[in-house]
Amino acid sequence: MLNQYINDNKDRFVDELLDMLRIPSVSADPKFKADVMRNAEYLKARLIEAGADNVELVETAGNPVVYGEKLVDPNLPTVLVYGHYDVQPADPYELWTSPPFEPVIKDGKIYARGACDDKGQMYMHVKAFETMVKTGTLACNVKFMIEGEEEVGSVNLGAFVREHKDRLQGDVILISDTGMLANDTPSITTGLRGLSYLEVEVTGPNRDLHSGLYGGAVANPINILCQMIASLHDENNHITIPGFYDNVQELSQEERADMARAPFDLEKYKKALNLGDVHGEAGYVTMERNSIRPTLDVNGIWGGYTGEGAKTVIPSKAYAKISMRLVPNQTSEEITEKFKKHFESIAPKSVKVEVKPHHGGEPVVTPTDSPAYQAAAKAYEETFGVKPIPVRSGGSIPIVAMFKSELGLDSVLMGFGLDSDAIHSPNESYGLFNFMKGIETIPLFYKYFAELKK
Amino acid sequence: MLNQYINDNKDRFVDELLDMLRIPSVSADPKFKADVMRNAEYLKARLIEAGADNVELVETAGNPVVYGEKLVDPNLPTVLVYGHYDVQPADPYELWTSPPFEPVIKDGKIYARGACDDKGQMYMHVKAFETMVKTGTLACNVKFMIEGEEEVGSVNLGAFVREHKDRLQGDVILISDTGMLANDTPSITTGLRGLSYLEVEVTGPNRDLHSGLYGGAVANPINILCQMIASLHDENNHITIPGFYDNVQELSQEERADMARAPFDLEKYKKALNLGDVHGEAGYVTMERNSIRPTLDVNGIWGGYTGEGAKTVIPSKAYAKISMRLVPNQTSEEITEKFKKHFESIAPKSVKVEVKPHHGGEPVVTPTDSPAYQAAAKAYEETFGVKPIPVRSGGSIPIVAMFKSELGLDSVLMGFGLDSDAIHSPNESYGLFNFMKGIETIPLFYKYFAELKK
Repeated sequence: MLNQYINDNKDRFVDELLDMLRIPSVSADPKFKADVMRNAEYLKARLIEAGADNVELVETAGNPVVYGEKLVDPNLPTVLVYGHYDVQPADPYELWTSPPFEPVIKDGKIYARGACDDKGQMYMHVKAFETMVKTGTLACNVKFMIEGEEEVGSVNLGAFVREHKDRLQGDVILISDTGMLANDTPSITTGLRGLSYLEVEVTGPNRDLHSGLYGGAVANPINILCQMIASLHDENNHITIPGFYDNVQELSQEERADMARAPFDLEKYKKALNLGDVHGEAGYVTMERNSIRPTLDVNGIWGGYTGEGAKTVIPSKAYAKISMRLVPNQTSEEITEKFKKHFESIAPKSVKVEVKPHHGGEPVVTPTDSPAYQAAAKAYEETFGVKPIPVRSGGSIPIVAMFKSELGLDSVLMGFGLDSDAIHSPNESYGLFNFMKGIETIPLFYKYFAELKK
Repeated sequence: MLNQYINDNKDRFVDELLDMLRIPSVSADPKFKADVMRNAEYLKARLIEAGADNVELVETAGNPVVYGEKLVDPNLPTVLVYGHYDVQPADPYELWTSPPFEPVIKDGKIYARGACDDKGQMYMHVKAFETMVKTGTLACNVKFMIEGEEEVGSVNLGAFVREHKDRLQGDVILISDTGMLANDTPSITTGLRGLSYLEVEVTGPNRDLHSGLYGGAVANPINILCQMIASLHDENNHITIPGFYDNVQELSQEERADMARAPFDLEKYKKALNLGDVHGEAGYVTMERNSIRPTLDVNGIWGGYTGEGAKTVIPSKAYAKISMRLVPNQTSEEITEKFKKHFESIAPKSVKVEVKPHHGGEPVVTPTDSPAYQAAAKAYEETFGVKPIPVRSGGSIPIVAMFKSELGLDSVLMGFGLDSDAIHSPNESYGLFNFMKGIETIPLFYKYFAELKK
C-alpha cells in the first residue's frame, strides 16, 4: 500500500524537489537572503499539503526554522525530524557542467547544489510523511524542525531548541544528512567528527609595499602565514598544537579491525580523485584518517595580488580560513582555545596575528544497541535486502551533540547519500534511486520504532 | 631664464600631469586597454606641443611606444629619454582615501595612481624638454621613448629596441623611475636588482572535496603549497634553492662601509611601517637586505573559499605568484630555471605542481665615473645645494640591462621620488616640490653632459 502510493506519486515527489533546488538558498552569503526566505516559505507550503499541523516559520536571530507536527496519539513514540534547507555556496561556478540552481536529471541522478546536502535527503522525510498520512499508516507522532543555517554552523539553533524545549519533547531525533557506503552496501552513521573553524589574519607592514624597494627587509605576511601554517604539522603529519591530542579517544585494535571490514579499495579511491598518492597521519589507514582521527585543513587562503598579470607587491595582510575536525573526547572550545594560543605564540615579532573563532561543533558517537538504531537497521534490511553496516563518519553535524545535551535525545542518522554525490563541490548530485529508496525506508523506521518502543 | 619660464608655466605643467593621471592606464588588466591607448595619444599630443619632431605611436606586439625626437646638431651628444605611461593596478581600491584616478593635491603632494611611478617623473622630462626648446637652450639632441608595458615586465620593449636600433643611436639613456633618500638628501641610483617572477599551481584532488569526509586522508593543496613555500627559506632566512647564491657578487667590507654612510634610522623605518621588528637575511642590515641581497617573496596567494562566512572545503587547487629579486651576477634565466627545478622536486607525490615563468629582468650596476653620472651629480648639486649620494636600489628596471646589451648604452637614473610616495600601494603620491625640482634639474644635466662630452 505504501509502495503503491509512492509509485503513483513518484514524478510529483521529484518535481517538487526540483522546484526547491531552483531556489539558491545559500546561507553563507547575505546576497541570497531573500532566496533563503523563499525556500522556507516553499517548505512550509509543502508540509501543510503533506498533512502537517501547526506549520510555521519560527523566527530566530538568523534564518527561520520551519516547524510542523502531527500528533496522532500521546501513547505513541514521537520522532523529531531534523534537516536543513540552506545550501553551501556554489562557487566556483565555472566548474559546474550545468548551472548549480537549474537542476537537471542525467543518468538517473539529479544535478544541483543541495541535491543531496540536504534538500534531497531532507525532502525524503516530507514525502515519507505524506505517504504515511495519506495511507493512514503513521505509526508515531512527528515533529519537523528544518533549519536554514546548517552550512554556517547552525549558529542560532541552540537558542531555538532551548526556547522551545517543551514543544520539542520526543523520543528520538531522525536525520538524513550523511551518506552510505554504496547502493548495494547500506550503512548507518554511528559517529561524527566535531569541528573548530577559525579565520586568521597576519599583518606585516601597515600598507602594501613595493617588493623591490622593501623585499628582503620586512616580513612578508604571506611568507610568514605559509611558515606558520606549515609548522602546524610535523613530518609524520601529526598536528603540532600543544595538547591537541590530549583528549583523543584511541580505538581498540578490535574496533579498528571492525572498521577495516567495511569495503574499501585504495586504488579505486586514488583513481576517483586522480591522486598520485594519499596523504595523512602516519600510523593510520585512509578510512581511519578521515573518521576516527582529528585533522587540520586550510579551507581558504588569500593575500596580495591575485588578479591577471603580475604585481610586485608585498601585501600588508594575508588571511586563511582553517578548520579542525575533532573526535571524541575533544571539545571545540578546548581545541579552538589551544589553536588560538599556539598560533599567536608562534608569530614572529615582525608581524601581528589575529585569530577569529568562527563556529564549532562537538564530536558524537551514537549507540548501536538503541531501539532507534535497531529500528533503522531493520528498515534498511527490508528495503535493501542486506543488513546495514555501522560506520563512523568524518563529517560534522554539530547539532547532534547539541540535541543530546539540550533535549537528552540521541539521533539516528539514516543517510542515503554517496561519496560520488560530491556535496560541497561543483556538480553535486543525488541519485533518484537513493531519493526513492529513502522514501520507502523511512516509513519502515517509524513502524519498527513504534514496535520496539512498546 | 630657464627658471623664469618654469615659474611662468608651473600651473599648466601640473594641470597637464593631473589630466594624464585621470587616465587609468593599467597595463596588467586587459579591461583598461582602451585607457592605455588614450594615454599614449595624450602623451603624443603633449610631445608635439613641447616641440618634438617625428612624434608617433610605434606599434609593438603589445602597447605602443610613444616616440619623439629633436635633433638639433649631429655634433652634439644625444640623450635617449626612457619612461613609461602605464601604471600598476590600483586595487585594493577601498584603501584609497581619494579615488586613484581622480588626482587631488593635498599638503603639497599629488595623490593618484602613477603620480610618481612613472607619470609624474616621466612628465618632468617632457616639460624640461619644452622649457629648453622654448628658451632656446637645448644643449643635446633628444630622443623620447615612453613605453606602456613597464608594469608588466616591458615584454615587447626588447623587440622594439632591436627593430629600431639605428633610430635609437645615442650617447646615454636618461631615466627617472627611481627614488632619492630625502628632499634635502638627493641621491642617484647606481645599482638595480633583477627580477624573476613566476606563478605556481598546486593540484591535489581532481575536484573540491568536503573537508569532513576527506579531511586527513588526502593532500590539501593549500597546506602543501604553504609547506613548499615555507621550505624556500631556512631559519636564517637564506633561500634554500640549490645554487641560488652561486653567482651572487659579494660586496667588499669597504663597499658595505660606504653604503652604511647613507643616512638611515631603523626606528623611524619601523615606525613608518608600524613594524614590531624588521625581518630578513641573517648577517646583513636592512639597507643591504633590500639592495645588495637577492630575495624571494610571495606577491599573491589564493585557493579554496575566500568569501564571506565559512565553507568546509578541501580545494582541488591552490596558487601563488612568487618573485625573486636578483643581484649581480645572477641572471633571471638561471634563477627561474633553478626555482622551477627545485619547486617541482620538492612536491610530494600526493599533488601535482605546475610552475609558469612570468617575466624577468637582469640586475645592473652603473659606473659613477662616467660623464653621464658626473653630469647628473653636478646638476643635483646645483639645484639642491648638496652633492647627491650614489645608492644601490632594491627595485628592478629590467630594461636598463637590456639597453646596455642591445644598444651598448649606460643609463643614468635621475630619480626624484621618495619612499613615502607609496608607489605600487594605495594613496600613491608625488610631491609638487619633487616634480618642479626635476624640471629644474634635468636641463642642467643636458648642459653639463654636453660640456663633459666635448
